[in-house]
Amino acid sequence: MTITVAVDAMGGDVGLKVTVPASVRFLQDHPAARLILVGDTAAIEAELSGPHVQAVRDRIHIHHASEVVGMDESPQLVLKNKKDSSMRVAINLVKAGEAQAAVSAGNTGALMATARFVLKTLPGIDRPAIAKMLPSLRGTTCMLDLGANVDCTPEQLLQFGIMGAELVASVTQKPNPSVGLLNIGSEDIKGNETVKQAAELLRESELNFYGNVEGNDVYKGTVDVVVCDGFTGNVALKSAEGLAHMIADILREEFTRTWWTRLCALAAMPVLNHFRKRVDTRRYNGASLLGLRGIVVKSHGGTDALGFRYALEQACEEARANVIGHIADRVAHQLNTIRQSEAAPD
Amino acid sequence: MTITVAVDAMGGDVGLKVTVPASVRFLQDHPAARLILVGDTAAIEAELSGPHVQAVRDRIHIHHASEVVGMDESPQLVLKNKKDSSMRVAINLVKAGEAQAAVSAGNTGALMATARFVLKTLPGIDRPAIAKMLPSLRGTTCMLDLGANVDCTPEQLLQFGIMGAELVASVTQKPNPSVGLLNIGSEDIKGNETVKQAAELLRESELNFYGNVEGNDVYKGTVDVVVCDGFTGNVALKSAEGLAHMIADILREEFTRTWWTRLCALAAMPVLNHFRKRVDTRRYNGASLLGLRGIVVKSHGGTDALGFRYALEQACEEARANVIGHIADRVAHQLNTIRQSEAAPD
Repeated sequence: MTITVAVDAMGGDVGLKVTVPASVRFLQDHPAARLILVGDTAAIEAELSGPHVQAVRDRIHIHHASEVVGMDESPQLVLKNKKDSSMRVAINLVKAGEAQAAVSAGNTGALMATARFVLKTLPGIDRPAIAKMLPSLRGTTCMLDLGANVDCTPEQLLQFGIMGAELVASVTQKPNPSVGLLNIGSEDIKGNETVKQAAELLRESELNFYGNVEGNDVYKGTVDVVVCDGFTGNVALKSAEGLAHMIADILREEFTRTWWTRLCALAAMPVLNHFRKRVDTRRYNGASLLGLRGIVVKSHGGTDALGFRYALEQACEEARANVIGHIADRVAHQLNTIRQSEAAPD
Repeated sequence: MTITVAVDAMGGDVGLKVTVPASVRFLQDHPAARLILVGDTAAIEAELSGPHVQAVRDRIHIHHASEVVGMDESPQLVLKNKKDSSMRVAINLVKAGEAQAAVSAGNTGALMATARFVLKTLPGIDRPAIAKMLPSLRGTTCMLDLGANVDCTPEQLLQFGIMGAELVASVTQKPNPSVGLLNIGSEDIKGNETVKQAAELLRESELNFYGNVEGNDVYKGTVDVVVCDGFTGNVALKSAEGLAHMIADILREEFTRTWWTRLCALAAMPVLNHFRKRVDTRRYNGASLLGLRGIVVKSHGGTDALGFRYALEQACEEARANVIGHIADRVAHQLNTIRQSEAAPD
C-alpha cells in the first residue's frame, strides 16, 4: 500500500534544513511511501540536491505554499490570516485525500487550531487530544492529553481512553490495550470529581480499564494507555523531561570533570553510547493529534533530521494501520451502546 | 540552641529498624540536638544497643505510645480510633511544646489529617500544603503542593507561594526567593481560570513573582519556588521519579549486559559512584507539611536510615530557622495589606 504524507517543510525552529534531509532519508527506508513537501518551491528545490536525493526524487512532490507560520504566532490570527501557509496547505492535502497524513514541526497551538478547523473532529469526539508514545520499562506507554485541553469533562477523558486504546491497538497490534486513569493514588476515593466520574465511565465502557494509575506508572509501563487532562499531562511530561535533562547534564559533568574521569568515560564509551541511544528522545518524537477526521502528527519544533524522521514514521504507521477508521468505529460503537442502555427500560 | 525533634519511631514500611539507626546517627552529627522516640518502649529499647548508642543515649528520650498507624489505614478512622498512635503522640509533643518538630515516615493522609487536627492551621492559611526541596541544575527548587489539595483556589495558590518563599528564605538564607506558577506555557493567556487568577494575585503580592513556569523549569532551577495544585504537583513529581528510575534501570542494564560492559563499568566505577551520590533521592527525602502551627516533616515510607536522617535534618533546619514564625509573620502582613487596600478609598 502506498502511503502519501504531506510535510510542512517550512515548520519548526530550523525548517527546511531539517525537514528536507529527514524526508529524503525517510523515503530511502520506505520504498512504497511518497511525500508531498509543502512550502516555498524554490527554497525546497535548493535543498533537494546530492546523489541521495536522485534515488528518491520521483517520490517527492513539491506543493507550493507562499506563507510560513511563526513559532510564536497566535493560533486565532494564523487561522484568519495565513490561509496559504505551508502548515495549512499540508492539512488541506489530507482533507482533499491527496495525502493520508500531515506532519508539521510548527507551532502546536496553530497546528491544532488549523487541523480542527480544516479536518473537523470525528462524530462523538468533543475535542481532539495530543497523544504520544513514551518509552517505558516494558516498551511504550501512550499518554494523552498532553496539552490540547486544559479542562476536561469525564466524557472527554473517556473519549481519550478510546482514542488511545485504538491508537495502541492498531499501531502496535496489541489486541486489547489496558487503559489507566492518571490520579494521585490508586484507591477509588482519590482525585477530584471529574476524575472520579471519568473512572466510572471508563469502568462501564468496553475498554480494558485497569483503574487509577500514578505518575510513576507512565514510565514503569503499568498500562498501555494513560489518560489525563491536558494540563496535568503537559506538566507531567515536561517535568519528567526536565529531570531527564538534569540527569544527563550531571552524568556529562561527572565524566568530564578531570582528565582521569575523561579516561573513564573513554573506557565506558561503547556502553554510554548504547545507553544514550536507548534513551534518545528523538526516537519518541511525533505526537498524534487524535480525534480528527485525518492524521496529523506534530514533531517537536527543535528536533533534528533524525527526530523529524521518527515523526514521519509515526504518521506513516498511523495511515497504514488506519487509526482514524478504527477510532471512528469504536466511538460509534460506544455511542450506540450508551444510546441502547439509555433506551432500555430499567 | 537545642532543638528537640519528636520521631514517630514506628512509622514507615520498615519502622524501628530504619528510624532508630537514623536517629542515633543524626545525634552523632548534631551534638546540640535531642530526640524523643515515640512508640513501643520495649521495642525501641531493644533497638538501642551498641557502642554508637552509648555516646548519644542521654539525648534520646523514649515516649511510649501503644498504637501504630498502618500504611493503608483511612485518615478518618485513624483520627477517630488511634489516639495513642506513635504518629499522633509525636505531633502532640509538638503541640505541647516539648518538641519543636515531628518527623514521621507513616501514611501521608493520616499524618496530614492528624497534624491538621492537633496543630491547626496558621491564621490566614486555608489548608496546609506538602512542600519539598527538589534537586535542580542550579541547586534546589521548592515545589508545593505535592498532593494535599486536589482542587485549589487562586487564594490558596497565593498562600502556597508565601509559604514556599518563607521556607526557602529561612532555610537557605536566600533573601527574596523567586516564585513561579506552574502552567503549560509561559504566556499569561495559558492555563485554566484558577491559574490565571492565581497569577494576578501573585503579581499583586509582595512576593518576587517570576510568572508562569513549565514542568521542565522545576529541575532547570528557573525559580526558587514552584507553586501548583496538589493534583498536578503529585503527578509531576511521580512522573519525574518514574522516568529517573527508568533511566537508572537502563544504565544498570547497559553496564551489566556482558563481561565486557561489566569491565567498562569497573573502569568507570569512581565516576558512576560519584554520579549516583549526586542523584541519590534519599538526599532529598523529607517533605514539609506547611501552613500548620508546628513543624511536621514527612519522610518517604520506603526510605532507609540514610533517607530518614535527611528527613530529621530537614525538620531540625526548619526548627532552627523558625520557619513557622516567618510564615505566620508574612501571612499576617499579606492579610493586612489586603485589608488596607480594601479599606482604602479608590
